[in-house]
Amino acid sequence: MIDTSRFLSDLHHLRSFGAQGTGVVRPAYSAPDLAARDWLAGRMAEAGLAVHFDAMGNLFGLAQSPSLLLGSHSDTQPTGGWLDGALGVIAALEIARASHMAGGPAISVVSFQDEEGRFGGTTGSAVWSGLLPLAEADVVRDAGGVSLSEARCLLGDRVGSDVDPAQFTGFIELHIEQGPTLDAAGEQIGVVTDIVGYREMMVTLTGQQNHAGTTPMALRRDAFQGLSAFNARLNDRLRNVVTPQSVWTIGHVAVAPNASSIVPGQVRFSMQLRDGDKDRLGRMQAIIEETLNEVATEMNLGVELEPSLALDPTPMDATLRARLEAGAEVVAPGRWRRMPSGALHDATNVARLMPVAMLFVPSIGGISHAFEEDTNEADLVVGLRVLAEAVGVKE
Amino acid sequence: MIDTSRFLSDLHHLRSFGAQGTGVVRPAYSAPDLAARDWLAGRMAEAGLAVHFDAMGNLFGLAQSPSLLLGSHSDTQPTGGWLDGALGVIAALEIARASHMAGGPAISVVSFQDEEGRFGGTTGSAVWSGLLPLAEADVVRDAGGVSLSEARCLLGDRVGSDVDPAQFTGFIELHIEQGPTLDAAGEQIGVVTDIVGYREMMVTLTGQQNHAGTTPMALRRDAFQGLSAFNARLNDRLRNVVTPQSVWTIGHVAVAPNASSIVPGQVRFSMQLRDGDKDRLGRMQAIIEETLNEVATEMNLGVELEPSLALDPTPMDATLRARLEAGAEVVAPGRWRRMPSGALHDATNVARLMPVAMLFVPSIGGISHAFEEDTNEADLVVGLRVLAEAVGVKE
Repeated sequence: MIDTSRFLSDLHHLRSFGAQGTGVVRPAYSAPDLAARDWLAGRMAEAGLAVHFDAMGNLFGLAQSPSLLLGSHSDTQPTGGWLDGALGVIAALEIARASHMAGGPAISVVSFQDEEGRFGGTTGSAVWSGLLPLAEADVVRDAGGVSLSEARCLLGDRVGSDVDPAQFTGFIELHIEQGPTLDAAGEQIGVVTDIVGYREMMVTLTGQQNHAGTTPMALRRDAFQGLSAFNARLNDRLRNVVTPQSVWTIGHVAVAPNASSIVPGQVRFSMQLRDGDKDRLGRMQAIIEETLNEVATEMNLGVELEPSLALDPTPMDATLRARLEAGAEVVAPGRWRRMPSGALHDATNVARLMPVAMLFVPSIGGISHAFEEDTNEADLVVGLRVLAEAVGVKE
Repeated sequence: MIDTSRFLSDLHHLRSFGAQGTGVVRPAYSAPDLAARDWLAGRMAEAGLAVHFDAMGNLFGLAQSPSLLLGSHSDTQPTGGWLDGALGVIAALEIARASHMAGGPAISVVSFQDEEGRFGGTTGSAVWSGLLPLAEADVVRDAGGVSLSEARCLLGDRVGSDVDPAQFTGFIELHIEQGPTLDAAGEQIGVVTDIVGYREMMVTLTGQQNHAGTTPMALRRDAFQGLSAFNARLNDRLRNVVTPQSVWTIGHVAVAPNASSIVPGQVRFSMQLRDGDKDRLGRMQAIIEETLNEVATEMNLGVELEPSLALDPTPMDATLRARLEAGAEVVAPGRWRRMPSGALHDATNVARLMPVAMLFVPSIGGISHAFEEDTNEADLVVGLRVLAEAVGVKE
């Protein structure tokens, strides 16, 4: 029998690692992240699971094989919410524990590492799935200049051998929606049809650093003005090719030398786009590169694009998805929908190894990746119960 | 007799404090800045001047009063050039030294502190002139969170009593142009007619930090998009009220939380404008505030303006200016011009206390506030000689 109060109390205990106000600061490999993983490992062992850390710090609680794998990630954004990833990990723990006690189906649990991208994005599952060679990931540095290989040293003797994906029959990830759809519709469950594709590039525009009082406007090569002109022109052009589900974001901007009396000589920024259609992603990326080169030429700026993560849209497994839909109809009849995932998830990488599926619970106000991120307790419990139904664990 | 090789060798010695490649990193109160001031103090004493640091760390070399005051500043931008400020200080030192040895007119020397604005801009001369109360300046913090009062502690027992401006009959500042005008025209000297006015404000736009994958474009309150829209609209509007001499700059931009997968919730940026006409400055500032409020309303963003430095255009003293023009005609006949100063200088503040004048030498390529900043040695010497002529010190 799943125990909803035990589930909620574990969820709140995980929240305490790196808690700041209503939010959580628990980036991958930080002291709070490692402490949280050690606590999770203990709870997994109590639940009759064999605890196993791999070289990335992905934490597995293994049932006897073959088994279904449930879970998500327990690292957070630099200023993250308390449910992003944590919900899927604790729900998996509760279901595996209940099934173990009741002699139900074998359920394994995972908390992937660095889903939030201190070193790139879904790094732990990308390495485990074979998408990203560990040696290639190891040289990536975070915003503070620390390399992944340096961060991984902090795992110390936790690290064991690799975990063979062949022992798992499939992977299901419960997650908060992180968007406004379910909350706005007053629905409790979203069964994911597919995860949208993703492109991200870092762009550097280089002009001429100069004195802001004595350099006439006509003679300036202002890198920030280049970014602003590019952004305005790109917004106009993309509107002709996108759908209401397409998104593009400039979330990181670094101006150099970043002083009020100096014409910016350089700006480095992130350009991220997401869409459910692979061809459309390609068209969007082409427009970005074309617009960048156009603006750079017109404004006499240098432009450099760094190669980066590209993930194609990922359809969910039909069989697992049908089990989630059946579970949703039992637990929340008439209050669930099928929907795409606008967010990237570990499930995208795991899909390279086995059948995967996902389900969502609402995010209040659609807010996520922020301290205000929250979900009604009743909806958290409904998410747990739908997942339990789908994997055949008695309530 | 002024000694041009002694002048050049002192100038190169000052360059060695905080040297990085061809540039200098010697911000106010840094270890290189204090070491440079101690060395300057020693050279002033050797030149027969009474050394005196005030509470701000402004360094004076005092002749018997009454005397003319010559000088500039010896602090630099975070990544600055080797001549900005340094030229005026070392030229003043050489002329005071030569005059002392030859029994010429009494010449005092000053190196003002924090002209480059670690704590606001022309901070040392602003406090000395009475424009800025020290208590008000003391609470200002630099980009790293250090307050001016904390930085001033590093002055230790150097600090003496205040320096009475009544002992000075006037102030003349030799400086590099920091713009392209003289270099492009092949001229050697610019006699400054007036220093343009200056307005600077820090602006914060606040939207809603959110997930970059799941927040539809239509529902976003993206603070960076607000900045970009404001910048584009402002550029269009200002073109109708400005002259080719008007400049406006967004040189500092801080996006929060500044992560590629997060819609920016806040952006804080500097907005600086300079113009020779006080009324036009007022019109430009009104357009900025109007455009900010318009964009904030349209995009549902919060907007906050922090009060900041405002300096009106400053005409130079007619008598001192005539002496500089006469000196220019003697030393560089037909190769000098009258011109406004687009850059803000300590002379703007000192003008509150006594008659002031300024002269410029060319900046190669008009480049300043950058490591590449440079001036031909011949032009440096011409600047020294024009200043010596103007103050009646024999060559």
